[in-house]
Amino acid sequence: MLKPLGDRVIIETVEKEEKTASGIVLPDSAKEKPQEGQVVAVGTGKVTDNGERIALEVSEGDRVIFSKYAGTEVKYDGKEYLILRQDDILAIIG
Amino acid sequence: MLKPLGDRVIIETVEKEEKTASGIVLPDSAKEKPQEGQVVAVGTGKVTDNGERIALEVSEGDRVIFSKYAGTEVKYDGKEYLILRQDDILAIIG
Amino acid sequence: MLKPLGDRVIIETVEKEEKTASGIVLPDSAKEKPQEGQVVAVGTGKVTDNGERIALEVSEGDRVIFSKYAGTEVKYDGKEYLILRQDDILAIIG
Amino acid sequence: MLKPLGDRVIIETVEKEEKTASGIVLPDSAKEKPQEGQVVAVGTGKVTDNGERIALEVSEGDRVIFSKYAGTEVKYDGKEYLILRQDDILAIIG
Amino acid sequence: MLKPLGDRVIIETVEKEEKTASGIVLPDSAKEKPQEGQVVAVGTGKVTDNGERIALEVSEGDRVIFSKYAGTEVKYDGKEYLILRQDDILAIIG
Amino acid sequence: MLKPLGDRVIIETVEKEEKTASGIVLPDSAKEKPQEGQVVAVGTGKVTDNGERIALEVSEGDRVIFSKYAGTEVKYDGKEYLILRQDDILAIIG
Amino acid sequence: MLKPLGDRVIIETVEKEEKTASGIVLPDSAKEKPQEGQVVAVGTGKVTDNGERIALEVSEGDRVIFSKYAGTEVKYDGKEYLILRQDDILAIIG
Repeated sequence: MLKPLGDRVIIETVEKEEKTASGIVLPDSAKEKPQEGQVVAVGTGKVTDNGERIALEVSEGDRVIFSKYAGTEVKYDGKEYLILRQDDILAIIG
Repeated sequence: MLKPLGDRVIIETVEKEEKTASGIVLPDSAKEKPQEGQVVAVGTGKVTDNGERIALEVSEGDRVIFSKYAGTEVKYDGKEYLILRQDDILAIIG
Repeated sequence: MLKPLGDRVIIETVEKEEKTASGIVLPDSAKEKPQEGQVVAVGTGKVTDNGERIALEVSEGDRVIFSKYAGTEVKYDGKEYLILRQDDILAIIG
Repeated sequence: MLKPLGDRVIIETVEKEEKTASGIVLPDSAKEKPQEGQVVAVGTGKVTDNGERIALEVSEGDRVIFSKYAGTEVKYDGKEYLILRQDDILAIIG
Repeated sequence: MLKPLGDRVIIETVEKEEKTASGIVLPDSAKEKPQEGQVVAVGTGKVTDNGERIALEVSEGDRVIFSKYAGTEVKYDGKEYLILRQDDILAIIG
Repeated sequence: MLKPLGDRVIIETVEKEEKTASGIVLPDSAKEKPQEGQVVAVGTGKVTDNGERIALEVSEGDRVIFSKYAGTEVKYDGKEYLILRQDDILAIIG
Repeated sequence: MLKPLGDRVIIETVEKEEKTASGIVLPDSAKEKPQEGQVVAVGTGKVTDNGERIALEVSEGDRVIFSKYAGTEVKYDGKEYLILRQDDILAIIG
């Protein structure tokens, strides 16, 4: 399997159809849209300036929402994954 | 429910009609306009370089004012939310 | 009332007429002009990497000078305020 | 009087005539020119991440040289001042 | 042999044919593609502000995935290597 | 005399004729050229986040090499000086 | 001799002929090319925020590979040197 480094997380993305019902474009809406996925592996955590390693908040199996344009796509064993930093994960779907 | 990570907060925004009474444009006014909402979930806090986790100042239920263009829009369970960092919240309406 | 977060301060601005007597434009003067106001609420202070919360230097009632383009305009209870970080405040008028 | 915040300093600038005797422009001279002034008030100092407040090196009455384009011009009590951070002060004229 | 400094790692890259089966360009896919390689040498680690040296997570012999455009190509003893910082390594193939 | 602040140093520059013997321009040479001078005054040092003041490495009288475009030119008592941060000094000529 | 300051290192560069055998330009190769040299002097090390001085990893006499566009060229005693920060050194040739 893939073992992410530091504060990185590997995610299997979930395809969601984006249906823009009405299609009205609000000019002052510059907000980015998130994406959904499932955590399949987590790193050992980031090391602070004090030499402490801070464990990640997300765990294997968590379903998460993350910033759409974050991370790097990886193809491994015929499947597509996304490797991103925990900081790009917005929330856990609990 | 959605559980935000770190210093993130989930907000249910409150629609407010923006009535620009007179419509006078002041050329040296480059200030951004804020928006109002209600906190529905808070993260466990940011971890400092010393490994300490700092609890958030806002709590579930707080009505807050935040920077208009901050955060990421999330649709969950048929409702729209906004996930942003506590630092994008300007004030609590108390 | 509005309760600002962290190192933020709420200010009621004081309108001052900007009379440019002569109108001579000095080409090498790239300095920004400040604005005056009165502090109506202060946050609980910024939290450092050591987890310490540093109290603000300004207090409710202080008349202050701040950077003109700093902060976010907020309308609350029919009145207009400005929410900015203490670092955008230049001096207290004592 | 005006009381500057943090590591800020208030300066009464000294007008100096800039006589460019020969007017030869050296193309590889990208250095900025400084300006002279007198310190009329100093802040209480910057607070570090450890929560320590570091007293300023300059004191009221010091004549100083500072970066020409630094700071904010303030008019107070009919006089013009400049509020800048101590870091923009290059040297004390002793 | 080459001995990388600090948090740097030397990698022997693995050539992979990039077959874009269908060739459909998704306009909102701004994600970068990673590359594969084998670690041949690791540095002694980064030194923190506390003077502590933090050992690297990757070891000689590890097969890793890294950001495609990271690092510096080095030719040594007739072979081509890539020297990059551990932070540019995304995951270990375990 | 001029007393530089913090980690600043005052230098009396030494004019050197730049003779480009052959005049061959190497297109991949983007390196900046240094300049020589003598230290005439040093600051008391930079203050770290721990509140410690770190004494400078250079002393009055040192002949040094520094980045050509660094610092601010100052005219004082009929002489021209350069005020720069110690970090812009590359080496002491010993 | 020249005594570099802080985390700086003085290097005598080694000329290497760059023979691009085939001349095929790979469009997605944006990697920079390194250069070789010998360390002739090292600084006393960088001072951290804790006031600790961290000794350099490279020593006089080390043959090193460094980023091609890093540093400042210095001519001293008829010879050409390069002064760069240790962080621009990629690896020691051991």
